[in-house]
Amino acid sequence: MDLELLCKNACTAKMVLGRLSTGEKNSVLIKVADALVANADDIIAANAIDVENGKANDMPQGLIDRLMLTKARIEDMALGLRQVADLPDPIGEVTDMSKRPNGMIVGKRRVPMGVIGIIYEARPNVTSDAFGLCFKTGNAVILKGGSDAINSNKKIVEVIRNTVANAGVTADAVQLIESTDRETTTKFMKMNRYVDLLIPRGSAGLIKATVENATIPVIETGTGNCHVYVDETADIDMAVNILINAKTQRIGVCNACESLVVHENILEKFLPVAVAALKEKNVEIRADEAARKICPGLKEATEEDFYTEYLDYIISVKTVKSIDEAIEHINGHNTKHSESIVTKDYDNANKFLDEIDAACVYVNASTRFTDGFEFGFGAEIGISTQKLHARGPMGLKELTTSKYIIYGSGQIR
Amino acid sequence: MDLELLCKNACTAKMVLGRLSTGEKNSVLIKVADALVANADDIIAANAIDVENGKANDMPQGLIDRLMLTKARIEDMALGLRQVADLPDPIGEVTDMSKRPNGMIVGKRRVPMGVIGIIYEARPNVTSDAFGLCFKTGNAVILKGGSDAINSNKKIVEVIRNTVANAGVTADAVQLIESTDRETTTKFMKMNRYVDLLIPRGSAGLIKATVENATIPVIETGTGNCHVYVDETADIDMAVNILINAKTQRIGVCNACESLVVHENILEKFLPVAVAALKEKNVEIRADEAARKICPGLKEATEEDFYTEYLDYIISVKTVKSIDEAIEHINGHNTKHSESIVTKDYDNANKFLDEIDAACVYVNASTRFTDGFEFGFGAEIGISTQKLHARGPMGLKELTTSKYIIYGSGQIR
Repeated sequence: MDLELLCKNACTAKMVLGRLSTGEKNSVLIKVADALVANADDIIAANAIDVENGKANDMPQGLIDRLMLTKARIEDMALGLRQVADLPDPIGEVTDMSKRPNGMIVGKRRVPMGVIGIIYEARPNVTSDAFGLCFKTGNAVILKGGSDAINSNKKIVEVIRNTVANAGVTADAVQLIESTDRETTTKFMKMNRYVDLLIPRGSAGLIKATVENATIPVIETGTGNCHVYVDETADIDMAVNILINAKTQRIGVCNACESLVVHENILEKFLPVAVAALKEKNVEIRADEAARKICPGLKEATEEDFYTEYLDYIISVKTVKSIDEAIEHINGHNTKHSESIVTKDYDNANKFLDEIDAACVYVNASTRFTDGFEFGFGAEIGISTQKLHARGPMGLKELTTSKYIIYGSGQIR
Repeated sequence: MDLELLCKNACTAKMVLGRLSTGEKNSVLIKVADALVANADDIIAANAIDVENGKANDMPQGLIDRLMLTKARIEDMALGLRQVADLPDPIGEVTDMSKRPNGMIVGKRRVPMGVIGIIYEARPNVTSDAFGLCFKTGNAVILKGGSDAINSNKKIVEVIRNTVANAGVTADAVQLIESTDRETTTKFMKMNRYVDLLIPRGSAGLIKATVENATIPVIETGTGNCHVYVDETADIDMAVNILINAKTQRIGVCNACESLVVHENILEKFLPVAVAALKEKNVEIRADEAARKICPGLKEATEEDFYTEYLDYIISVKTVKSIDEAIEHINGHNTKHSESIVTKDYDNANKFLDEIDAACVYVNASTRFTDGFEFGFGAEIGISTQKLHARGPMGLKELTTSKYIIYGSGQIR
């Protein structure tokens, strides 16, 4: 496979995609949704090879579950594409248009990014999701999926490409990098001459490797060492509800709570209730000294624990003397994803919103709401934990850029 | 100098700066403007050492001119800070606020980026400009100036730091990396743990090295291989005016025209007039075969010429058979900065606006207008030629990011 040729093909395709009308794009998305369902048996057969290989290689059960495709899951992938077809098309919107003193009319037009690269792990549903969001926004997409899902991804991409081509649009709207070696991935990350944006989706290790190696502009996604801070004035029931929801409603996701921070003045009343509720959900608790005085028998937390995104039934507990110490602790250990304060105090609520450095800062709500659908975007390509271009849940708009358009009548400087 | 400590200091400073009110920030900016003027003699004395060293090292006269500071230039630097103080403060604005079905109120608040790094060459005025724009937006800034201007920069930064500290704000609002070796610069580019955004300002080589080495998110600025395309229906006088303005009004800037593209149907009427006007301004013309048939004696253009940002009294000339060929030629050779069509044809004007891939696309106006002041932003930190976060002229708003703030009342998922 010639990686550079593949990138050049994407550049040719982006010109075609950028010219499609919203109606044309939606029609193709619906055809692709139909084709995925119609080809479900073939996709499941290809996926079965990956699942077999995974089992032979002792892939953990959790990963096997994410890798495995069923008729129902393929229908969900198709449903996702239909929903994207239903969303408003952000492309073409013009904002900030004004007439300059010299008579020139300057406006900012929303346009496709161009070519988007997505590097992800063994989740074949990302293959159709990423295609859908990129296609709707007029972008060509180059996918680099995990080697564990290569057979599934090849078949899904084949179905999409055939359908897009049959609809009279270029098949190169989506391309899959089939080589699964690390060298190809690293080479791909340096294709900034052709690729406008690179989104890594997956483990902290994948994201770190992308940031370190890429010359393509990257949007970091996902890692979430999220905190719930229980202020001294918190409502105990609300605090326990939010904590249990944030920690246990779904443990393997980036907006799950990994650490509980508690004001010392509420520790004695709150902690025993919280510990009982966490234990009922089989959560292992790793606590600092002050917390272990109140609830003896808890495991001791190390400094390392406070930096850890467990993605598991484990939580760390930190006691603080003040909201300032809470904010300093959180800003010093978090991954800038989602943080929540539970409080009845007006000033502390505002202070937390002001001073916490994170994509999403909550008062009296669970961190689990950090999600494109929950925020009303209708779709999500990931959650940005960096500050450039997009922060927090990324929907269609975040896959676009702008260009200034200037209508003149002979103006010179 | 401990580079990591310096970065940590910036992180401490950003917390202080993020809390300043608009009034406090404006008051400091005006004090710094006063202090620069009051210390003009010291700054000029430090600058004289750099100028002497530059002359001893055979620095080209153009660079000496940009390096040299005078009373008038220091007053301009001060004026720049006063103008930034007068601009509206973008920080704190909340947009897209809505109530979700579950009662949570979600809004997007504009917040400082945090720590911004700026790498630039021997232009000491950038030192105070960059401080002013970053300070107004609540960001701590780390400056890495060119070694040729090190004495000037040290003195300017000393004056700023003293003034900011005396105003009761942390001196670390601005820090200068005093080591001028390449290793330090490369090490700085990898400080993504502390620095949120890196803006290289200078030559194509500096920008390329930054993109290749940085792990900090980068905004590429500046290089401009800009075209003027004269369509077959162009008004000849307008086309010549725009061409001469775009090419010669100021040759060393990124929005200057470097290449003329002409439709073959207008070549015979337009080119001799254009060539005469260019020659009058002492512009060397490097033309393709079709153009040299019309104007014999022009130098031959190589393929290399069409990729070159001359920043000099040189222009390349390319003849095309259609607007499609013009667009393909421009998209294939440009640096995505600024492109202009001169035409009377409605459809061709729209086609050019639609299909040219650049930060700023003009109809019937000079590319020289790509500039934060000309677009009405009141200030400019550079012109982005990439697609992430900011595209085209960057003002105060482009030095900010957002965070989602969520007001809940106990919501869980």
